[in-house]
Amino acid sequence: MSQGSRYAAVPYEHGASKRPCPQPRAASEAELFAMSLTVVGSIAFDSVRTPFGERERMLGGTSVHFSLAARFFTEVRPVGPVGEDFGDAEIDVLASRGVVVDDIERVPGGRSFFWRGRYEYDLNVAHTEDTQLGVFGEFEPKLSDASRAADVLFLANIQPDLQRQVRSQCPQARFYALDSMNLWIATARDSLLAAISEVDCVIINDAEIRQLTGESNLARAARTVMEMGPRAVVAKQGEYGAALFTDGGFFALPGFPLEDVRDPTGAGDSFAGGFLGYIDSHEGEIDDLCLRRAMGYGTVLASFNVEAFGTERVASLTREEIDERFDQLREMTNFDILPASAR
Amino acid sequence: MSQGSRYAAVPYEHGASKRPCPQPRAASEAELFAMSLTVVGSIAFDSVRTPFGERERMLGGTSVHFSLAARFFTEVRPVGPVGEDFGDAEIDVLASRGVVVDDIERVPGGRSFFWRGRYEYDLNVAHTEDTQLGVFGEFEPKLSDASRAADVLFLANIQPDLQRQVRSQCPQARFYALDSMNLWIATARDSLLAAISEVDCVIINDAEIRQLTGESNLARAARTVMEMGPRAVVAKQGEYGAALFTDGGFFALPGFPLEDVRDPTGAGDSFAGGFLGYIDSHEGEIDDLCLRRAMGYGTVLASFNVEAFGTERVASLTREEIDERFDQLREMTNFDILPASAR
Repeated sequence: MSQGSRYAAVPYEHGASKRPCPQPRAASEAELFAMSLTVVGSIAFDSVRTPFGERERMLGGTSVHFSLAARFFTEVRPVGPVGEDFGDAEIDVLASRGVVVDDIERVPGGRSFFWRGRYEYDLNVAHTEDTQLGVFGEFEPKLSDASRAADVLFLANIQPDLQRQVRSQCPQARFYALDSMNLWIATARDSLLAAISEVDCVIINDAEIRQLTGESNLARAARTVMEMGPRAVVAKQGEYGAALFTDGGFFALPGFPLEDVRDPTGAGDSFAGGFLGYIDSHEGEIDDLCLRRAMGYGTVLASFNVEAFGTERVASLTREEIDERFDQLREMTNFDILPASAR
Repeated sequence: MSQGSRYAAVPYEHGASKRPCPQPRAASEAELFAMSLTVVGSIAFDSVRTPFGERERMLGGTSVHFSLAARFFTEVRPVGPVGEDFGDAEIDVLASRGVVVDDIERVPGGRSFFWRGRYEYDLNVAHTEDTQLGVFGEFEPKLSDASRAADVLFLANIQPDLQRQVRSQCPQARFYALDSMNLWIATARDSLLAAISEVDCVIINDAEIRQLTGESNLARAARTVMEMGPRAVVAKQGEYGAALFTDGGFFALPGFPLEDVRDPTGAGDSFAGGFLGYIDSHEGEIDDLCLRRAMGYGTVLASFNVEAFGTERVASLTREEIDERFDQLREMTNFDILPASAR
């Protein structure tokens, strides 16, 4: 049975009664979910224009980019609503690649989240031209038992009260992470601070860490966030890479150097997917070494993401390509290992 | 004999006849210079205001920051003019720390280069409020035999034709590097391209590499510069650190994370001083491993530079502090070595 048909067999409905009543599960089945990753965030269509081309209504959204990256490491379950415009072809992009689509809810009569944006020459800033929330505007996350049983939970960039609702439905995860954005920092600050206090890790753009804390110094800003509860802060820095702050120290990776960058949309989400996917696949303690390697996988997945429009590159990626680039990245950041060509 | 009095014993004059006629030197003396580093750039007074304080007419300028960083690794000789306002106290900051000040020329009746700038809250952009070239406006570099005998030559950010003049006076260096800036890219582009073609390494802000090449992609921009002649390109990225491009590969280091940054003025020059100072001290081939370690020392010296105003921190620095931070930096960028506190 393909995973696409598994999705099709679950006729979710919208509203308070939209979820089928949870069925009792055998313990042995529940245990199967003990190594899985749930992500709650947008599932969308994106129209994007960059200096290197444009695409209309590509499959996109945080959960999509995240899931396509994380699926290389673990079982990943995106949770969220889509509209009737979201067809089996879109579902199949995920399902045929092992993403568990049971908790993607197709809302009758609804329209999917839509984003239109463009990038200038330097690709660093996304200029939003249109955002239509569609079914996402009335999203009330209710997780299936399988999604609740997540080992790792990622609260993508949604309203912080929704993040907290989802968090409360997943009491037994061993690692919680969230992302946020300037909108929620400005309009729902107290809720966001409460949400942050309930997670292990904040993954956020460096400008937003500064905005959140009022600290222009990144090291101080990260420490301020850690004092709210999280034990790790990942500052995403666009083309400059990402930095990890923990009690144990500091770690940073450059963006993987690419001569051809076509579309940065979703890079941060692919980063988070590689980062948390690796963490979920890691059997031992989630220590600093685990987090550093996760940074490496996040960086690698983000780099593939930007090589083509939308999900094109990550959808066609192989684990071998990931591991090869991971090894290249290690080599590029090591003082003592020479590049192969110079040995 | 203090080095301060050595400076005072050389009454240079201004203009075409300003340099004493080079005296023949014994071969044995010339050999003493075989491991030395010459830098040609500004020697200045800086007035700086940041959110953390302000200082009037501090000792500054590229050659000063560069030399105070490079002196930990090798014999360094700044070349350039100062005015009568540049007193023995300023000279002594350099000379008492082992910087060879013989080629600092005090111009009778002249005023030293002066820069006034301020930084906003985020410390990333210097806003220039005043620049007075003073004696630098008529600078015609003529190097002493000792400076000509440099093993490594740094052509700091001066007019590219002057860079070429200096380059032609130092035929036997084993490593040539230059810096430049948006002004010369815009106003003296052909000269700059010629100057670049004559060096081994370009050390420049990433925005300026893009401006120089018209390539917004940094990896392509660096390759374009290497196609002009240099075998290495260092892209300085401010708080994000620096990236090294060579034929052998790519290497990058984050800025050293600091919770207290007081004044970024001179950070790039201290970077170059640590980078080229280490290279000059390196006895073997200047290969990729040497360049990577040099990136580490550059990063470390830049990080100390910004901890206090002007030259305050680097002037009081010890080699032990440098090596300790270098080891911390290695640890912060390694996938496999855990931070000491987490072992």
